[in-house]
Amino acid sequence: MRSNSIAPLLNFSTREYAQRLKKTRSAMQAEGVDTLIVTDPSNMHWLTGYDGWSFYVHQCVVIPLDREPFWFGRGIDANGAKLTSWLSHDNIVAYPDNYVQNPECHPMEYLSTILDDRTLGKGVIGVEMDNYYFSAAAHAALVQNLPNAKFKDCTALVNWQRAVKSDQELDYMRKAGRIVEVMHARIRETIRPGIRKNDLVAEIYDAGLRGVAGIGGDYPAIVPLLPSGAEASASHLTWDDKPMRSGEGTFFEIAGCHKRYHCPLSRTVFLGKPNQKFLDAEKAVLEGLQEGLLQAKAGNVCEDIANGFFAVLKKNGIIKDSRTGYPIGLSYPPDWGERTMSLRLGDKSELKEGMTFHFMTGLWFDDWGLEITESIVIGANGPELLSNVPREVFVV
Amino acid sequence: MRSNSIAPLLNFSTREYAQRLKKTRSAMQAEGVDTLIVTDPSNMHWLTGYDGWSFYVHQCVVIPLDREPFWFGRGIDANGAKLTSWLSHDNIVAYPDNYVQNPECHPMEYLSTILDDRTLGKGVIGVEMDNYYFSAAAHAALVQNLPNAKFKDCTALVNWQRAVKSDQELDYMRKAGRIVEVMHARIRETIRPGIRKNDLVAEIYDAGLRGVAGIGGDYPAIVPLLPSGAEASASHLTWDDKPMRSGEGTFFEIAGCHKRYHCPLSRTVFLGKPNQKFLDAEKAVLEGLQEGLLQAKAGNVCEDIANGFFAVLKKNGIIKDSRTGYPIGLSYPPDWGERTMSLRLGDKSELKEGMTFHFMTGLWFDDWGLEITESIVIGANGPELLSNVPREVFVV
Repeated sequence: MRSNSIAPLLNFSTREYAQRLKKTRSAMQAEGVDTLIVTDPSNMHWLTGYDGWSFYVHQCVVIPLDREPFWFGRGIDANGAKLTSWLSHDNIVAYPDNYVQNPECHPMEYLSTILDDRTLGKGVIGVEMDNYYFSAAAHAALVQNLPNAKFKDCTALVNWQRAVKSDQELDYMRKAGRIVEVMHARIRETIRPGIRKNDLVAEIYDAGLRGVAGIGGDYPAIVPLLPSGAEASASHLTWDDKPMRSGEGTFFEIAGCHKRYHCPLSRTVFLGKPNQKFLDAEKAVLEGLQEGLLQAKAGNVCEDIANGFFAVLKKNGIIKDSRTGYPIGLSYPPDWGERTMSLRLGDKSELKEGMTFHFMTGLWFDDWGLEITESIVIGANGPELLSNVPREVFVV
Repeated sequence: MRSNSIAPLLNFSTREYAQRLKKTRSAMQAEGVDTLIVTDPSNMHWLTGYDGWSFYVHQCVVIPLDREPFWFGRGIDANGAKLTSWLSHDNIVAYPDNYVQNPECHPMEYLSTILDDRTLGKGVIGVEMDNYYFSAAAHAALVQNLPNAKFKDCTALVNWQRAVKSDQELDYMRKAGRIVEVMHARIRETIRPGIRKNDLVAEIYDAGLRGVAGIGGDYPAIVPLLPSGAEASASHLTWDDKPMRSGEGTFFEIAGCHKRYHCPLSRTVFLGKPNQKFLDAEKAVLEGLQEGLLQAKAGNVCEDIANGFFAVLKKNGIIKDSRTGYPIGLSYPPDWGERTMSLRLGDKSELKEGMTFHFMTGLWFDDWGLEITESIVIGANGPELLSNVPREVFVV
């Protein structure tokens, strides 16, 4: 596949990248797509190895059916593409810097010319209409500048190919699971009334980055979420620099990350004595989680897990109307989910061995919240838990 | 502005939010826009205070000319909007959870109905075509479902209103400047051959999150970039878990962050003895930086700073063809820049007192790189430096 002098450090074998490309091309053919423009940084990485915090400018990987893909990005990121992807240097194509954040000209105009030069500016071009970083302006620039092409929405086409994980991917995710274990252990060791939230976050990052047993930590695609008390009624608040108070519950939604692979896991800590409704909710979540896990096996469908969980909640008088999980794996900000399946009613996607999910059993009430979750691998007869953290509300 | 029972904790006075809204509405009127849909999370925060890591799902703030704006987002984030924004609860509008990452229905379809219900689905609707998180699919859903509206591209309309900082904003940015000082001090204290990159990153996060003098750290919109040796030829690589090696230079592009306000600052460390080309480049950058800073005053234009820097580089035989800075302030991932002006040739935007920039004087060569930068406030007669970190290549 490659004939360059400097060998990049890849996280997977070239054989695995070739298989990924093959699967993607089969999916393209099934959709009648001649050329696919991949803008989601997770998909770019999965297909080519490309890594770097450059997704704040326009970039993509272009997949023709019959030729090596090419990376397209900003000039100062081209060396990064050479260092991290298996692509030959001929297929690392940069746009000039004056196209960066310039209302006068758009990088996708430049890409249109490149596509025409490579005789790819015609036929059916697939674009990820609703994946991250493919803006409305990017789409408009392509449509305007490629009058001979037909565009087809291929949102999540590549994401779906990622659903069943390879052995190497599972290895990285299990390592991320080891990391999230030490992150939660650090919380239990350091949390106390009076500790400032930001200092506790420093402990979480320290544990997550140093990792465990020689396994170093990468940055998770979402920062720690750790709202307390009434703020825990909101699902996505981050932190401030105020001291933590007694009499409040705090959930910690965090992830271990290794080589961009994630293991999210939430636990809840209560400083002081939790009231009865808190304890009742804990009991319902733990029982429901167990019931959902029983459904997490190959051959079942996504909603089976949700139904298992929701049924126990309902029995306990709790209605949850948000989805209760999503696939996980390789990711970049802003989301560690894969945005294909959802664990919710009506999702009949078949569970297959090697699929990985965050079983997101969080509850958010009017003025408090509680999260105790698990990340799992679907097995033939039941799930493998990606990490082992005491499944309880930790009371200090 | 508000008549709710629970007062949210706001980072600015209600007077300041009212002024921001007024400025934005003036800009809307100048563009002939009746209703503005703001999807950039930084713009949403700047206008309403809304904070939270929820930008991985579709959300926005809608600004009519004559009524209070409303927040639109996912149901489980509505409590977050109540807790962090000044909006009245009537103007916090949630969409049902089955709209989340569902190819069958799009949140912007739901928004279209809300806009019609509020008689806002007509006239000229401004959208941020090229701001973050406004996907091609989001735009298509609005256009399809609001046949009586005309859409106008308002990319960066709000971002431009943010260019001149208020006293309170500058206070937060100066605090971020104190934080980035201790982050770089920590690097100098802990870096040595053999330290694993991820452990050094743990030190950087620890310093940045704990902050200084009671000022706690928030998460920067970009994670630390710290490539070494040949990898420093790439501008946006992050880290691995390998030990640092002698004989290599490493640049550290990091930011202090306080209440979502940033002070980015890059420095370079060389482990061992830098060669002559490294020392020559350092000298050129330092001299050029000084020359550029002389131009950083009200009444000049953006390209004056770039020209000052580039002229010195050229004299030293160095050509830099990427832009050399951008405005900074409030931000969310994936970028701490404001995406309005650029410090580059041809940008004639006038510098005004209270504008803030990262003067990004990084150099990336074929197999190495070097960054020594400053973040500044434009003053009447010259710039204020937002932080004070020794301006040199630190040699260990």
